[in-house]
Amino acid sequence: MELDIDRGSPIPLHLQIARGLRERILKGAIPAGGKLPASRKMAEALGVNRSTVVQAYHTLWSEGLTEGYVGRGTVVRPTTAAGGAPVAALSWGALLAAGREEADGEVRDLVRLLAREDVISLAAGLPAPDLFPMEELADAARSVLEEGGRSLLYWCDTLGYEPLRKTLADRFTNTTPGEVMILSGSSQGIFLVARALIEPGDTVAVGSPTYLGALQTFRGAGARLAGVPVGPEGMDLEMLESVLSRTPPKFIYTVPTFQNPTGSTMPLERRRRLLDLAYRYGVPVVEDDPYTPLRYEGEPVPTLKEMDTRGFVIHISSFSKILFPGLRVGWMAAPKRFVDSITPAKYLQDLFTNSHAQAVVHEFLRRGLLEKHLEKVRREYGRRRDRMVNALRRHCPRFEFTVPEGGYFLWCRLPRETGARELLREALRKKVSFITGEIFCPDGQGLDRIRLNFASHEPETIEEGVRRLGAATRSIRKRSGREPAATEKTPASPIV
Amino acid sequence: MELDIDRGSPIPLHLQIARGLRERILKGAIPAGGKLPASRKMAEALGVNRSTVVQAYHTLWSEGLTEGYVGRGTVVRPTTAAGGAPVAALSWGALLAAGREEADGEVRDLVRLLAREDVISLAAGLPAPDLFPMEELADAARSVLEEGGRSLLYWCDTLGYEPLRKTLADRFTNTTPGEVMILSGSSQGIFLVARALIEPGDTVAVGSPTYLGALQTFRGAGARLAGVPVGPEGMDLEMLESVLSRTPPKFIYTVPTFQNPTGSTMPLERRRRLLDLAYRYGVPVVEDDPYTPLRYEGEPVPTLKEMDTRGFVIHISSFSKILFPGLRVGWMAAPKRFVDSITPAKYLQDLFTNSHAQAVVHEFLRRGLLEKHLEKVRREYGRRRDRMVNALRRHCPRFEFTVPEGGYFLWCRLPRETGARELLREALRKKVSFITGEIFCPDGQGLDRIRLNFASHEPETIEEGVRRLGAATRSIRKRSGREPAATEKTPASPIV
Repeated sequence: MELDIDRGSPIPLHLQIARGLRERILKGAIPAGGKLPASRKMAEALGVNRSTVVQAYHTLWSEGLTEGYVGRGTVVRPTTAAGGAPVAALSWGALLAAGREEADGEVRDLVRLLAREDVISLAAGLPAPDLFPMEELADAARSVLEEGGRSLLYWCDTLGYEPLRKTLADRFTNTTPGEVMILSGSSQGIFLVARALIEPGDTVAVGSPTYLGALQTFRGAGARLAGVPVGPEGMDLEMLESVLSRTPPKFIYTVPTFQNPTGSTMPLERRRRLLDLAYRYGVPVVEDDPYTPLRYEGEPVPTLKEMDTRGFVIHISSFSKILFPGLRVGWMAAPKRFVDSITPAKYLQDLFTNSHAQAVVHEFLRRGLLEKHLEKVRREYGRRRDRMVNALRRHCPRFEFTVPEGGYFLWCRLPRETGARELLREALRKKVSFITGEIFCPDGQGLDRIRLNFASHEPETIEEGVRRLGAATRSIRKRSGREPAATEKTPASPIV
Repeated sequence: MELDIDRGSPIPLHLQIARGLRERILKGAIPAGGKLPASRKMAEALGVNRSTVVQAYHTLWSEGLTEGYVGRGTVVRPTTAAGGAPVAALSWGALLAAGREEADGEVRDLVRLLAREDVISLAAGLPAPDLFPMEELADAARSVLEEGGRSLLYWCDTLGYEPLRKTLADRFTNTTPGEVMILSGSSQGIFLVARALIEPGDTVAVGSPTYLGALQTFRGAGARLAGVPVGPEGMDLEMLESVLSRTPPKFIYTVPTFQNPTGSTMPLERRRRLLDLAYRYGVPVVEDDPYTPLRYEGEPVPTLKEMDTRGFVIHISSFSKILFPGLRVGWMAAPKRFVDSITPAKYLQDLFTNSHAQAVVHEFLRRGLLEKHLEKVRREYGRRRDRMVNALRRHCPRFEFTVPEGGYFLWCRLPRETGARELLREALRKKVSFITGEIFCPDGQGLDRIRLNFASHEPETIEEGVRRLGAATRSIRKRSGREPAATEKTPASPIV
């Protein structure tokens, strides 16, 4: 057996040696269990430095071709018993990486509810298709193709279409286009944050309740979720500080404005205190902010990103709630160091976000069409909210809720004897659906809550949906055949 | 301190107990270091089963609020020293999960080369923008919006737009629309496969050379890459079997047709043997197949997916190489069990692929526009390939290559004294770029190779690019000031 090396070649000697040995091992010329020469001898025979041979041997070892034994030298790894009998079928279950099959029953159920046309879905987290500005879209889609469409459809920077990034960066002071990344929907931003920051066993502080997709993504990355109660003014900061001081989380995830699912908005002063806590404990804040433009009354509150003076906030937003979910365009504004660190992962996931869709969204902004559309939907969604509130007072008088100043959602506390899951089963019989509260809670709360979307249907449909919901509530009450007794509570028990 | 529980509530008792204790702990009513009552005592005091209390305590423990000590009971976790001094800035480097900052120098360099307009890039893996069917696109984009655009832009199944899935499923016998997933580019398919199948330390068998993005994604998932040499007829199956028998890989990744970067195609008989090896060793095959429609001469060969009788093949393809990369539409056809297992991850990454783009691609297929476009590009890309081959023979007569029957790429072996990296530095001075071979090789090979794209430029630009490449080659040769001596090889050395 001989080994050729070529000193005139640009290929380093250790790679040439590794290549020669690899071929001989794979072809069986050096048999399994056979020894490679001691590195010193090999180096002498080839007239190279010993370190060159050591490097070549290390390469073969790292490829799993050899094993090293103290006192025995480098030995070619044995092959397994030859794959003899044909296998009948692959066992995908055994092949799948542990924990990678996310519990997805909930996700699929939600999707199925949307697909059932006979059911009025108050479940979706989606805008109203009847209000979509379809002509403006067709016009923008055509005009961006006419002006420079070829280069648009060819390639795009992974960070996104530069004119759109520039426009979004201009919303904040001191933010450059290099600190903005266009996402294939804000879900991708949450996914990239989780991938970048979470190692299995890390803690993440989240609202309880909060957006389901974020909980699923953080769980999927192996995080422990520390739930911080969310009330009508957002996260309970006393509880948040208790979490921060006890199990320092990797980051705080919050939807501070028109929160999903509660509709609550964190007031200005509380935002200051939240940032102060983040600064003091050295924990970044992920601000998920798709609903801010959808305010129907009250004074606007600045985003955490606008208030952040120290580069702690990763701001994620989307055009899915204010324009078209189907275009899948979201965005992130975050410290450059962080944006840079997630760019390779974005590149490997989808190279870049559909560039035609990015240019269409930019065209909506450039022409002022988004602002015009927002004026329309704010007016209409506000009316729809009021319509649902009135319908609930009429058909479901025992539901409790706070009327939100914007967003999509009413978060209802059910009458005490009514479980949310039981109500959903009955509601589906009556052809109306919603989301039960517990899936938004990392800590098993929310079983007495439901989330209703007031934005996505026309007013008559809202009215009819709530009427069916009221009928379902009455059915349950009737079936349980009792008025809730005021004295059923166990007397308060003293503990320690 | 008192704890209320409500037996009339639909909320299970253990959750009520956990909630009450959580509040008290977070508010400091039970101090850090304080003990919770023994579960038996607590159960007696509340009049519930002991197992209910144990469940509540376990919840608090899993949230990191308590610790358990044998003989000491359940103790509230101490808080860290109060976050005192304000921190100056976040250390993102310390926060980022280990290993999640992929080595991306190569990726960024490639992107930068594309952006330099003064440089003729023979580097990109992209189609020819001058051939894009722009009018057909504008027309399809408009017409799918007119017909049912509202529902299209509202929501889409995570698997993708059903008419498109159906059309793609019909390409194979025995494949249903439920076995097809539309992807945001084929990169997403490779990413989802890696996420589903690779656990850190697993081996993946890949061609050497092969598609860079796949190598990066598999490495990012923690895989060890076993490189199997790829020649003019694809993977060396003798070597592949040696890998299969030695370090059973989780899967085999292959680009069997007009491979990136070599342009090689695996002949029919070899495909049979590859599948037979996969069956015998029980290892699935990931077939990355974006180039099959781009055949300029010779007999078509069926895909591995078409030949697979046992459900071992995960077929990934794309419209980026045959239509518009900017639309980011790819697809996968795979066993239903596997498609189902990756659907939750696709949902969490981007919910679904831009549904307008999916409908546009479907419209291209439905109207026969894709087939018409393919006829045009096949004719034109074939001419461009011949133009590059002739230009290379004239300007770079010492380059060696096999002329591929389709695809985008010429894979050239450089003259022996010329290193690919050195040539790239000189080529950039002469305003032409390409990709150096070693980045396609998991095993450090390819330093004497370069990949040239012959498809993406008009013929005159190809000619000029190759002329500059020839000039760069001659500069290096001149600078090294020597003809390579035929006798520089070290005499073959006997080993073992």
